[in-house]
Amino acid sequence: MRKENIDNTETINQAVGKQTIKFANPPAIISRASVVGQMEGEGPLSSFYDQIENDPTFGMNSWEEGESEMVRRAVQTAISKSGISKEDIRYLLGGDLLGQLIGTTFGVKSFNIPLFGLYGACSTCGEGLSLAAMLVAAGYADNALAFTSSHYGSAEKQFRFPLEYGNQRPLSATWTVTGSGAFVVSSTKNQNAMQGYPRITAVTTGKIVDYGVVDNMNMGAIMAPAAADVIYQCLEDLSLKPDYFDKIITGDLGKVGSEILIKLLRDNNVEIGDRHMDCGVEIFDSEKQDTHSGGSGCGCCAVTLAGYILHNMDQGTWKRILFVPTGALLSTVSYNEGQTIPGIAHGIVIEH
Amino acid sequence: MRKENIDNTETINQAVGKQTIKFANPPAIISRASVVGQMEGEGPLSSFYDQIENDPTFGMNSWEEGESEMVRRAVQTAISKSGISKEDIRYLLGGDLLGQLIGTTFGVKSFNIPLFGLYGACSTCGEGLSLAAMLVAAGYADNALAFTSSHYGSAEKQFRFPLEYGNQRPLSATWTVTGSGAFVVSSTKNQNAMQGYPRITAVTTGKIVDYGVVDNMNMGAIMAPAAADVIYQCLEDLSLKPDYFDKIITGDLGKVGSEILIKLLRDNNVEIGDRHMDCGVEIFDSEKQDTHSGGSGCGCCAVTLAGYILHNMDQGTWKRILFVPTGALLSTVSYNEGQTIPGIAHGIVIEH
Repeated sequence: MRKENIDNTETINQAVGKQTIKFANPPAIISRASVVGQMEGEGPLSSFYDQIENDPTFGMNSWEEGESEMVRRAVQTAISKSGISKEDIRYLLGGDLLGQLIGTTFGVKSFNIPLFGLYGACSTCGEGLSLAAMLVAAGYADNALAFTSSHYGSAEKQFRFPLEYGNQRPLSATWTVTGSGAFVVSSTKNQNAMQGYPRITAVTTGKIVDYGVVDNMNMGAIMAPAAADVIYQCLEDLSLKPDYFDKIITGDLGKVGSEILIKLLRDNNVEIGDRHMDCGVEIFDSEKQDTHSGGSGCGCCAVTLAGYILHNMDQGTWKRILFVPTGALLSTVSYNEGQTIPGIAHGIVIEH
Repeated sequence: MRKENIDNTETINQAVGKQTIKFANPPAIISRASVVGQMEGEGPLSSFYDQIENDPTFGMNSWEEGESEMVRRAVQTAISKSGISKEDIRYLLGGDLLGQLIGTTFGVKSFNIPLFGLYGACSTCGEGLSLAAMLVAAGYADNALAFTSSHYGSAEKQFRFPLEYGNQRPLSATWTVTGSGAFVVSSTKNQNAMQGYPRITAVTTGKIVDYGVVDNMNMGAIMAPAAADVIYQCLEDLSLKPDYFDKIITGDLGKVGSEILIKLLRDNNVEIGDRHMDCGVEIFDSEKQDTHSGGSGCGCCAVTLAGYILHNMDQGTWKRILFVPTGALLSTVSYNEGQTIPGIAHGIVIEH
């Protein structure tokens, strides 16, 4: 079967094409965890989460402290499930949507593990998994832990309107997921011990793509061009067709953004319509839960990967996926100063 | 002389001790650039900067847009000085202090290079140089560009008080540097071609350290324990004494924080008082320029490294330094909610 998979038989990691790294010994995701809020727990992917917390502040005093507690629980759960001790994890790599990453800082400070703080908006899960895999595959660490989070209350307060306003939302708007996902990424130098785990065989790092969109209630349209760009480049760099993958899974484009993505790639003679899935579309039942275009936020694709997606890979339903977290790069300051909202996305090839 | 330097004669990169990576082929800093504002240009390190801009908005419409323009100029200058084309730079790694990294996003979006967005508060220069060196030394890229920025106007507006308030500042307060530094970090597989450049021989990645300080007008006290922690660990991991280094250079502890750092290490039987320098202390003439405890911000140590420090290494004044950017992890939200302000610092060993 090996010849059908990405050829990782080289003895050294390879920079291929313009933006992709192919790993000689693809790192394994030996453990993952997802912690979510009540609304996610009432959604269609409910049974795949490790923890569902109905208290929006997670027993703390504010949404922000609640987000940090959620992060702490996700990281702790991923470590516990990995069977290794936290002292054996050499790096934490993660970030969140809040200014100056306070969800991350106060979530992981008690672990006492070296930290690379990351910001890629909702693409952060992809950025963290990419760097974790790169550091592990380079031999810098036996184990690294990538994580990310978002929280409906803290995000709405920061980016849009405090919840108390009760403002109306257009149908193109997405719903920020309350969730944190964490992943222990480990070396497979000892190949035999790692046979049972999904592996990160390649990563494609995204560029900022700016189509000049200025509507912060239509994030899908902002991120779709960045997703199209990185998917196109990943296929190009690895000389693959879309049908190599059982699924090509974007982060939080929602229904509106997903349609744009498929059309953009079709215009470039790449057809992914028959195998595309978007975590933002899957995570809520938009009709019953009134979430409009779907879920969004760093946590959206992170908890969907940690739960539903990797479950399907464990079951053998999907053997190879291209996982593409998508981010919209803005702040209230840049938005109010009339700047556009550029997008970014990172591609992770996972094979089992 | 080789035996006196860090032993990089191994053929593979090595993870040594708890937090350090020693490179087999230490990446070179083949080019660097610094762009600063008027006040920095009037300071004692004036002659070492590439560009001094007297317009606080850098010809744009706001402080934030000005910060992005400053970043764009620093990155462009570093690329121009490197002699390689931007297409040969595989990764950008950088970040800034503003919420959701808008200084970075709008500063580098036109370059069309894959981006890893980073947040480590004022330690970001160290985080970026660490990851750039790690990715290059692993063979993932021949060239990567690390950059960071801060801007007095945009930072004061975000973190403290809009400048128009004219509030009084205590003597322990620091002054956010308007500056952006950029560094092209390149592979030295071709050893001979790289003899003339300073090299990153090792990196020590810091942990979050929280002494429970809550005074945002005394950042030096917040960051000193994190700096002490990473300096101690770097020496321990590499089995070195402080006198291995000609200088041990922290980011922006200022006068108050520097005293605390030296005392904390002295309490652990490590004496660095005779060779410690702090970029925040050097960058301004605190009496003439009324900058109190010194300069701060991501740009502070970045422009000091790009200018004054690497100039001294080029001249042979200093042959080996331990460069330690220091960051305080807070937002106005976490601060106003009564959270502590934890610190983080990253260590970079540079030898020439």
